[in-house]
Amino acid sequence: MKRSQSAAPIALLTDFGYRDHYAGVMKGVLASIAPGAALLDISHGIPPQSIAAGAIALGESWRFFPTRTVFLVVIDPGVGTSRLPIAVETRAGVRFVGPDNGVLSLAARAAGIRCAVRLESTRHRLAKPASTFHGRDIFAPAAAFLSRGTPLDALGSKLTRIKPLQLPKPDASDGAIRGEVLYVDAFGNLITNISRRDVARLQSSFPGKQVSVRIKHGAPMKILSTYGEARSGAILATFGSFELLEIAVRDASAATRLSCGVGAAVVARVAPS
Amino acid sequence: MKRSQSAAPIALLTDFGYRDHYAGVMKGVLASIAPGAALLDISHGIPPQSIAAGAIALGESWRFFPTRTVFLVVIDPGVGTSRLPIAVETRAGVRFVGPDNGVLSLAARAAGIRCAVRLESTRHRLAKPASTFHGRDIFAPAAAFLSRGTPLDALGSKLTRIKPLQLPKPDASDGAIRGEVLYVDAFGNLITNISRRDVARLQSSFPGKQVSVRIKHGAPMKILSTYGEARSGAILATFGSFELLEIAVRDASAATRLSCGVGAAVVARVAPS
Amino acid sequence: MKRSQSAAPIALLTDFGYRDHYAGVMKGVLASIAPGAALLDISHGIPPQSIAAGAIALGESWRFFPTRTVFLVVIDPGVGTSRLPIAVETRAGVRFVGPDNGVLSLAARAAGIRCAVRLESTRHRLAKPASTFHGRDIFAPAAAFLSRGTPLDALGSKLTRIKPLQLPKPDASDGAIRGEVLYVDAFGNLITNISRRDVARLQSSFPGKQVSVRIKHGAPMKILSTYGEARSGAILATFGSFELLEIAVRDASAATRLSCGVGAAVVARVAPS
Repeated sequence: MKRSQSAAPIALLTDFGYRDHYAGVMKGVLASIAPGAALLDISHGIPPQSIAAGAIALGESWRFFPTRTVFLVVIDPGVGTSRLPIAVETRAGVRFVGPDNGVLSLAARAAGIRCAVRLESTRHRLAKPASTFHGRDIFAPAAAFLSRGTPLDALGSKLTRIKPLQLPKPDASDGAIRGEVLYVDAFGNLITNISRRDVARLQSSFPGKQVSVRIKHGAPMKILSTYGEARSGAILATFGSFELLEIAVRDASAATRLSCGVGAAVVARVAPS
Repeated sequence: MKRSQSAAPIALLTDFGYRDHYAGVMKGVLASIAPGAALLDISHGIPPQSIAAGAIALGESWRFFPTRTVFLVVIDPGVGTSRLPIAVETRAGVRFVGPDNGVLSLAARAAGIRCAVRLESTRHRLAKPASTFHGRDIFAPAAAFLSRGTPLDALGSKLTRIKPLQLPKPDASDGAIRGEVLYVDAFGNLITNISRRDVARLQSSFPGKQVSVRIKHGAPMKILSTYGEARSGAILATFGSFELLEIAVRDASAATRLSCGVGAAVVARVAPS
Repeated sequence: MKRSQSAAPIALLTDFGYRDHYAGVMKGVLASIAPGAALLDISHGIPPQSIAAGAIALGESWRFFPTRTVFLVVIDPGVGTSRLPIAVETRAGVRFVGPDNGVLSLAARAAGIRCAVRLESTRHRLAKPASTFHGRDIFAPAAAFLSRGTPLDALGSKLTRIKPLQLPKPDASDGAIRGEVLYVDAFGNLITNISRRDVARLQSSFPGKQVSVRIKHGAPMKILSTYGEARSGAILATFGSFELLEIAVRDASAATRLSCGVGAAVVARVAPS
């Protein structure tokens, strides 16, 4: 096997943090089984055990990676319980490996699930009795074998579905979209569940009217095209890099300024004429 | 030299943190001298100047990496003093480069020391007067030359021994093993110096009796096979991913809940019948 | 194109932090466009929006990387404003990609600017309307195309100059050099703008006299050759790994001990005879 030509890239996403050696140990396993594969860290700083934050990070990331990439995702509050370890193949070409707890579901659904299997082949894992480190012993080996070209169905038996993640959906009625903050990034930007398409649909129902946005009980704001249109220190609403409505403060943290976090109510509404 | 075939992987472990460019500069040196080598970050977040934490992280990591891996370890409170810069070759095949302050000793001993040298060859370091950055000027070049195939003894003269790290050993007597917490990981799990083998030995001396575990003055606990056997929020004892007894709290931090840290007393004892 | 031979390494330096997936998404873009390129993280932990800290980190790092390295630098408080996205080719061989806000200037000047262009070719970016994530959509693609061998002038039109960064210069007069702290590293070391060469020049004007250093109103200190010459806990002055005068505390944080940060006054002076 010609390594540098055929081993697919492996992208890592975990909540292991950067203090311990746990992510490093997984890289050792990957490099041992798939020596030619490029290892690409997405993040190991997902808030501990936050399945929703991991699912959003993966959902916003996967389409920017090479077609054959294998995503190794370990955000796994249920390690040691009955949740299944799985691998997913998609129509877009990317593959996903991780626990079946919803963390893979946003990305896998967007990429188009072609086939999913339960990881159960003992030939494709490290032999450890009663392991509590599935990232090392089950998920990393599976990802490395997929990178090397092992077919998905060699890893285990087929599943008919994977567990979905239920993110709160915005509610559109009466000339308004009622959503909420899904994610707060490290700059303090508040990313909502209201998409550019949701707003375009609202706008097309009320041609000629302006849409304004409020967070909690704040003042209504226009939606700007870029951060640069706001003055330094001003609160603003714009569509972020992933086409979701974002509330931000130019050159500062909106989370701090507005004392808002995940779950805060955000409403987009056509202005009364 | 065909780079992608012959340059061995280099794994990095430091206490440099993630804010500064110091770990990055070492990668530049590695990529300059050994351009084909895979660079694998284990962690740069070891608690500053904590030789014991670094030694444990390395001791738990090395066996999961490819056989030829060169480990570049820079946890070096004594930089600029008389401690020696060294490189070690092992029977297991892996190589270690770092300061001779004990940080390499757990891993090197487990891998079987075949030969150790003092890094003194001026042809295999960056020329800097009175450098205080040995990671960049001495250790990274040595690791890169080993990765490229430079023989160990070209780097300096042989040493008869490397400095050992004295970790506290558990005491086994009177039907009990008295140990302590060695390491607290980022999830707040308390990793002790009592191994699965220590407990098995105790158990075999008292057949049919149950072993229970206490930390400080807490209630006795059975040893569970997996985290999943405990209820959310419960304190539990189990063997962790590295076969050492761990005290954890399901879905929370044991360190916070029990106000325990490195050095806290842990006892495994056969229950009175 | 033979990837492993010709794709140049790409070194990443950002203030994105380690919690979000933003740096990871850039790696996906890089690996998609330049699949054979080694991706080398310098740091993603530069203090948010600190152009000076990023410029110093890059200025101290670039010369330790391979000659053909492309540096992808995204510290960009002005994203969405009129600041230009640029790429720079140097006489030393390295290339720089980032915003024209001064963050590239210390390194680019030291490496010798041969040519700079404004990134404007739509064929060499990701097509996104009103993007606020230039790292992903403009800078990463440009870096990846340079790594693959795309000539600089294919990326956009030439610029006659790039924006300089004005760092405070030390003042030398009356047998003294008056400088200040430029940067505080993660160990609490205080790195000043007084270079070894500045001090050598002072010394050569006053042969036979000793130079001593004071920070704020502290006691005068001799300049030591290494940290090891100081006792544990002692305040010391030495030339750091980048030939700049550093104030440190052996085995502790000088920033904490002296309550000093960026801007604190530091004076090197010949001792009265």
